Amino acid sequence: MEKVAIIDLGSNSVRLMLVGISSDGSYKLIDEAKEGVRLSENMGPELTLKPAAIVRTIEALRLFQHLYRAHGITQIIAVATAAVRLASNQREFLQQVKDATGLEFRVLSGQEEAQAAYMGVVNTIDASDGLIIDIGGGSTELIQLKDRRVVAATSLPFGSVTLTESFLDKVKPTEEQVKTLEGFLREHFSSVEWLRDMNNPTIFGLGGTIRNLSKIDRKRKKYSLDITHNYRMSGKDVLDIYRLVRTANLEQRKKIPGLSKDRADIIIAGLAVVSGLVNYTQSQELAVSGSGLRDGLFYQYLLRNREVPFIDNLTQHSVENLMRYYNLELDHPRHVAKLTLSMFDQLQSLHELGPAERKILEVASLLHDVGILVNFYDHHKHSFYLITNSRINGLTHREILVAAYVAMSHSKPLQANILPHRDILNEDDGKTIKILGVILRIAEALERSEAGVIQDIRCHQYVDNVHLVALARHSAELEICDAFKGAADFKKVFGRNLFISAQNL
Amino acid sequence: MEKVAIIDLGSNSVRLMLVGISSDGSYKLIDEAKEGVRLSENMGPELTLKPAAIVRTIEALRLFQHLYRAHGITQIIAVATAAVRLASNQREFLQQVKDATGLEFRVLSGQEEAQAAYMGVVNTIDASDGLIIDIGGGSTELIQLKDRRVVAATSLPFGSVTLTESFLDKVKPTEEQVKTLEGFLREHFSSVEWLRDMNNPTIFGLGGTIRNLSKIDRKRKKYSLDITHNYRMSGKDVLDIYRLVRTANLEQRKKIPGLSKDRADIIIAGLAVVSGLVNYTQSQELAVSGSGLRDGLFYQYLLRNREVPFIDNLTQHSVENLMRYYNLELDHPRHVAKLTLSMFDQLQSLHELGPAERKILEVASLLHDVGILVNFYDHHKHSFYLITNSRINGLTHREILVAAYVAMSHSKPLQANILPHRDILNEDDGKTIKILGVILRIAEALERSEAGVIQDIRCHQYVDNVHLVALARHSAELEICDAFKGAADFKKVFGRNLFISAQNL
Repeated sequence: MEKVAIIDLGSNSVRLMLVGISSDGSYKLIDEAKEGVRLSENMGPELTLKPAAIVRTIEALRLFQHLYRAHGITQIIAVATAAVRLASNQREFLQQVKDATGLEFRVLSGQEEAQAAYMGVVNTIDASDGLIIDIGGGSTELIQLKDRRVVAATSLPFGSVTLTESFLDKVKPTEEQVKTLEGFLREHFSSVEWLRDMNNPTIFGLGGTIRNLSKIDRKRKKYSLDITHNYRMSGKDVLDIYRLVRTANLEQRKKIPGLSKDRADIIIAGLAVVSGLVNYTQSQELAVSGSGLRDGLFYQYLLRNREVPFIDNLTQHSVENLMRYYNLELDHPRHVAKLTLSMFDQLQSLHELGPAERKILEVASLLHDVGILVNFYDHHKHSFYLITNSRINGLTHREILVAAYVAMSHSKPLQANILPHRDILNEDDGKTIKILGVILRIAEALERSEAGVIQDIRCHQYVDNVHLVALARHSAELEICDAFKGAADFKKVFGRNLFISAQNL
Repeated sequence: MEKVAIIDLGSNSVRLMLVGISSDGSYKLIDEAKEGVRLSENMGPELTLKPAAIVRTIEALRLFQHLYRAHGITQIIAVATAAVRLASNQREFLQQVKDATGLEFRVLSGQEEAQAAYMGVVNTIDASDGLIIDIGGGSTELIQLKDRRVVAATSLPFGSVTLTESFLDKVKPTEEQVKTLEGFLREHFSSVEWLRDMNNPTIFGLGGTIRNLSKIDRKRKKYSLDITHNYRMSGKDVLDIYRLVRTANLEQRKKIPGLSKDRADIIIAGLAVVSGLVNYTQSQELAVSGSGLRDGLFYQYLLRNREVPFIDNLTQHSVENLMRYYNLELDHPRHVAKLTLSMFDQLQSLHELGPAERKILEVASLLHDVGILVNFYDHHKHSFYLITNSRINGLTHREILVAAYVAMSHSKPLQANILPHRDILNEDDGKTIKILGVILRIAEALERSEAGVIQDIRCHQYVDNVHLVALARHSAELEICDAFKGAADFKKVFGRNLFISAQNL
């Protein structure tokens, strides 16, 4: 297995991410580490990295070395961002690091940092058009996204840490201080020419400020899923929460549910940037990305030999990767998916669902048995847990939940209780789950002995009946009997009797 | 992989269980199937199996054949219980089955059935002394357990189905009918000589009646874990629930939360047996076994060449089996467990916990990282899910929960929120979780690079301080630094400062 270490040296902390890439192309996170070295501390107007901060950084890198060497790393990607980029003693610092650790850091330009942020988003969220923002400690990247590609990018030379230092009292900022900061930000935003043309873009937000913002919002709303990545909130929610913290003192801020205590001192400046951009662009929606710079660097590495710089079919890619991560036997779920989709397509006039539901059904089919990894008993329940917790990229939270319910209901399609997630799912979703659940229930039965006995199916529709012909390689008694047990549920959902017969190929 | 098919032909249904046994001795359930063939239907006083029932049974067995053949089974264990045992046309029936399917069924005697039930319990529950009862459709097995061995066993020739048929109106039994049944049972119990000497035994209960009883009780109490196996309820709970259903009519019974609709017609007779035994023996505790006859037959097969007929250290056996099921790398968790237990033992005078907690800590150490199987992100949370859902034999529900919390809190030992399970855990458990969590937190850090750098530890206690000396094979900077991050939590829990140093071996 190829093992890649990605080291990201920022203003506040240095982070390590270890990723393994198997020979089949699948990849997984192996380990992570973080040390808060505060490299930019006391840089002062002369912008020099100070000896104490340098010592802390080198110490941390030496610890990381122990870790990635123990893992037998084959590739190291080490980058430095704003603090080092701006430092007047950059060259000396890099030499010192190299002498002490052997590590050669690449200093990312603002444009390169923006590019990496873009790669982290576009390869993990179904993002086509909009504005990507990455708020760091010492810089803020803005990227205009169109048809999944970068059309413009700007790096602003300030972030949550430096803005706090320049404008705000950390304990209790005054109204005037905050207003000055807001004015400063507006001015900078309006100096970015391409940003002026953006009107109500979806904002894709990266970085600790925005992850924390999403947590505050989820707490407020008692959101029923514990997932950050691709969480969506309205522009109004962003502004509401900003108003809440805007001039609160440190103790008050620390008491806001979900607000990270480590971030309480710099959260005002960070949120001023987000809400400033929401206001400036009149954005109605913020999508939170759990993937950031390091993920982007990883995807740059993974896709380095591809012509198109991003993954084409995110969901398919993500599910395939998951199936390999889970070490699943691939033939059976793929065959179930084939039969399920064939049935879905042939019954389209009955259920009238579209391509979005088809995609969900495919995911549910491929992962319906994944819960067996936890325990054979109650594995439908465990499939639900795994699907909602394994971060399938390219799906919304609603779609992930529907897929999880469909997978869970493959044994008892009409018993899903969606009430615990009624904040995300509506009645129509409940109906969709029943329809897709029944189809999966029957298709899975047609592959009961997991040996590909039924090659394909033909559905013939009549006024009161549906006749399903299973095209079988040989005797399919078991499959037909088991599938027929789903006929009562089929009748309840589709209002037609289901007949099943086998036809030998 | 060796694959064993176990077929169990009862009065009501025929069941198939497929188990795989790896070359390393670990085993796992591969598939299950059940067909409700009602073999004993209309047997009448002449006790003959009727043609229609025989046809249904043979049909079901043929379906099973497709399934286990597709799985490439290497061994078949097929047994028949009460219905066939009692049938006057037993020999003809067995011949018919053999002609149609090739399957040769072994007809279990009452004693053999009791023995198999015993094997299912003693190898999955930490049961030393008590009364095992297995209530089937057509027979009831009673086994006296002492020092984990059978000292007496009796098979009574009636079960929930036959008692219902003989005594009760299925829809609305009268007070008199129920009283007659209760008298009949008392008489039979008092005819079992060895049963008279049992006074307040723990009852280990098997079979659908008792599993359903436990579900009703869990619903009533809003029990916070969804686990049947080794669920404990008081004798009083058993009697309360029996009173609830005793003379309720069918519709009323179906409305009782948790009561299985398929079982509503025979539940009164089944519960009459359990509550009759609770009354007769003055038992204060019922332990519910999710393992039954088929599991027992499997363990008989698995342990066939062993001198002692049961597994010696249940928890260890079960966790080892789980680790293999999960395909875990074994060295790292074992090394963490070694360091954790060494620290636990050396700090005994500080925490004053005993062998029960030591066992829990070992389980938590071995499985602390198991959540990575689901997702690296939030894996501590997933470890909690896996540990509570993977059925670790030999632990009580309380112990499983404590182990899960300790494993979950290995990164942040003092943040476990036990409130959702306050029906099972008390304040002392909360303290135990913190103590064990801190120990695991530090010991895991000492194995941070997963390479066995720290061989063992020595703890020196002083009035205000504990000095931990890590015996290292080579440079252990990373481990010491990471372990030291746990010092603040150590201080909170043990009231002493923690110093850590390395000593090269």
